Amino acid sequence: MNTFNDTFLRAATKKEVEHVPVWYMRQAGRSQPEYRELKKKYSLEEITKRPETCAWVTKLPVDQYNNDAAILYKDIMTPLPGIGVDVEIKAGIGPVIDKPITSMQDVDKLYELTPEKDVDFVLETIKILRTQLTVPLISFSGAPFTLASYMIEGGPSKNYNKTKAMMYAEPETWFALMDKLGDMVITYVKAQINAGSQAIQLFDSWIGALNQEDYRFYVKPVMERIFASLKDEGVPLIMHGVGARHLTMDWQDLDLDVVGLDWRYPIEEARRDGIVKAVQGNLDPSVLMAPWPVIEKKAKAILDAGMQQPGFIFNLGHGVFPEIDPAKLKQLTAFIHDYSKEKLAQK
Amino acid sequence: MNTFNDTFLRAATKKEVEHVPVWYMRQAGRSQPEYRELKKKYSLEEITKRPETCAWVTKLPVDQYNNDAAILYKDIMTPLPGIGVDVEIKAGIGPVIDKPITSMQDVDKLYELTPEKDVDFVLETIKILRTQLTVPLISFSGAPFTLASYMIEGGPSKNYNKTKAMMYAEPETWFALMDKLGDMVITYVKAQINAGSQAIQLFDSWIGALNQEDYRFYVKPVMERIFASLKDEGVPLIMHGVGARHLTMDWQDLDLDVVGLDWRYPIEEARRDGIVKAVQGNLDPSVLMAPWPVIEKKAKAILDAGMQQPGFIFNLGHGVFPEIDPAKLKQLTAFIHDYSKEKLAQK
Repeated sequence: MNTFNDTFLRAATKKEVEHVPVWYMRQAGRSQPEYRELKKKYSLEEITKRPETCAWVTKLPVDQYNNDAAILYKDIMTPLPGIGVDVEIKAGIGPVIDKPITSMQDVDKLYELTPEKDVDFVLETIKILRTQLTVPLISFSGAPFTLASYMIEGGPSKNYNKTKAMMYAEPETWFALMDKLGDMVITYVKAQINAGSQAIQLFDSWIGALNQEDYRFYVKPVMERIFASLKDEGVPLIMHGVGARHLTMDWQDLDLDVVGLDWRYPIEEARRDGIVKAVQGNLDPSVLMAPWPVIEKKAKAILDAGMQQPGFIFNLGHGVFPEIDPAKLKQLTAFIHDYSKEKLAQK
Repeated sequence: MNTFNDTFLRAATKKEVEHVPVWYMRQAGRSQPEYRELKKKYSLEEITKRPETCAWVTKLPVDQYNNDAAILYKDIMTPLPGIGVDVEIKAGIGPVIDKPITSMQDVDKLYELTPEKDVDFVLETIKILRTQLTVPLISFSGAPFTLASYMIEGGPSKNYNKTKAMMYAEPETWFALMDKLGDMVITYVKAQINAGSQAIQLFDSWIGALNQEDYRFYVKPVMERIFASLKDEGVPLIMHGVGARHLTMDWQDLDLDVVGLDWRYPIEEARRDGIVKAVQGNLDPSVLMAPWPVIEKKAKAILDAGMQQPGFIFNLGHGVFPEIDPAKLKQLTAFIHDYSKEKLAQK
């Protein structure tokens, strides 16, 4: 068996590394021909409920690209049926929820999550992966705002109109929902850590829709509670959202280890603004549509900025698109490793 | 005839005013029952091509809400058929373009806009409105990046993947397209000003998808050319985009008068960051879903920040949603007028 590569964990905790670790959001999935072949037979739900298959999907890109971390293949919606929310992932649309949450009665009806019963397949996949992987396994959960947005809108949204309407017009219902989702996230994440996950990323993908004032009032309290409950679990905690530059300083207040940046927040500016935590990012995934010299130039600039201090993980600012050629991801990983190794050796 | 209310024009040019002027993006349209009644008979295209009807739609919210400016009812896609792009506005989707731009050949085929022939109905509507309105008439154009995104993607997009792919992979094609769209915008805007428009807003609605580095290289040059060509036309020029806080300092370099801010960029922070131009914004349109006390509280905070110096126009950070109750817009306008009048009188 190969030696365990702990570079990702070292970077996440701001320790010295020999090369910059890299993984890609959605590295497992849509852009891989082997995955698309599998999807002809099984839906996302079916794959997640077949631990051996799900482990194979999770491990595939790590082997192919030589990435420094694996991220468990599943959806942020995966635990929701466990609390009584019927979700269907529709191709070309995303998660669709037929009976959206509209009232306190709906919130009252949500159950508590019982991981061994409701997401046993997730825990089983984690256990299998820990026997197979030689890099750390990242698990994840959606964060309450983003989960709530699907539950209230009934699916993906452009404006989060109904979500914000509940926040502003029915704050008691809103906070009750945040409480229940906060409980769920804590239970779900702890179970994943107990099963063997070595890092956790919280996806608050759509939180950037809120301004700072609303974030602080309507969402930050539950995030404080979540991270306070998880900080002693002994694994690095990563926060990610898209277009959330204006909330990054608030994330820094939370008991978490790594702050995700998207491509609109240059790392050097984040450092200048006072972000001292480890950072993860931030190539625009659309750049992977470009010819190699453009990708290399942009990756190099990100590496040069990121390597200025310990605590940098290379990633994309958002997930890999289906159109991306896997060969480019492999080439990019090799470039990140080689370039950073040389630079860090000179330090 | 009533006296002409020039408050909006005075604020746009940073002159003293007696009250804060207000208008709302998409004030004419979807949220108004009279408009929805009309839409049962006519499509958006049909309304824009009936100048008397289009003028009525444009004027209706000004009369109902007592706003300080009218904005011409039309779509940013309206001039595109004039340069050879077939667009259909599909209900629930948005603009759909069956033959997207994919190559230099496609760009070469685009015509020059001949306003008197291609958008004569727009010019006619402007002339009619100038005989009817007692507030300034704002006209608008889409900006090249946002127009290009529809032309390349073939419709609305989440990631602007194909648009960025052309930018990165085919920069010659990209810049040729920017040039042609830049010419179109200049011609189109000048014709609208000649017909009687008293202010111009450029909608670069989706420009926030680019980071600052890409904006400066791929888009800013054409914006410089557009505003340099328009600056001597004698009307205030307004720039607007959604989620574009990270580009606002670049807008300040351009020959324009008013910078639009969305709700994620508080006015006091923009001033602190060095934005000295007049600003327009920035209530989250979703707040209009809230009960009145929430709306009032948030509007008051925006007014207090905006009135710190001359050059402030109240608006939303994005367009009015169909679900918004027109009575709330009326109440909000009255509040903005009353509150700001009292505060400004005390200065």
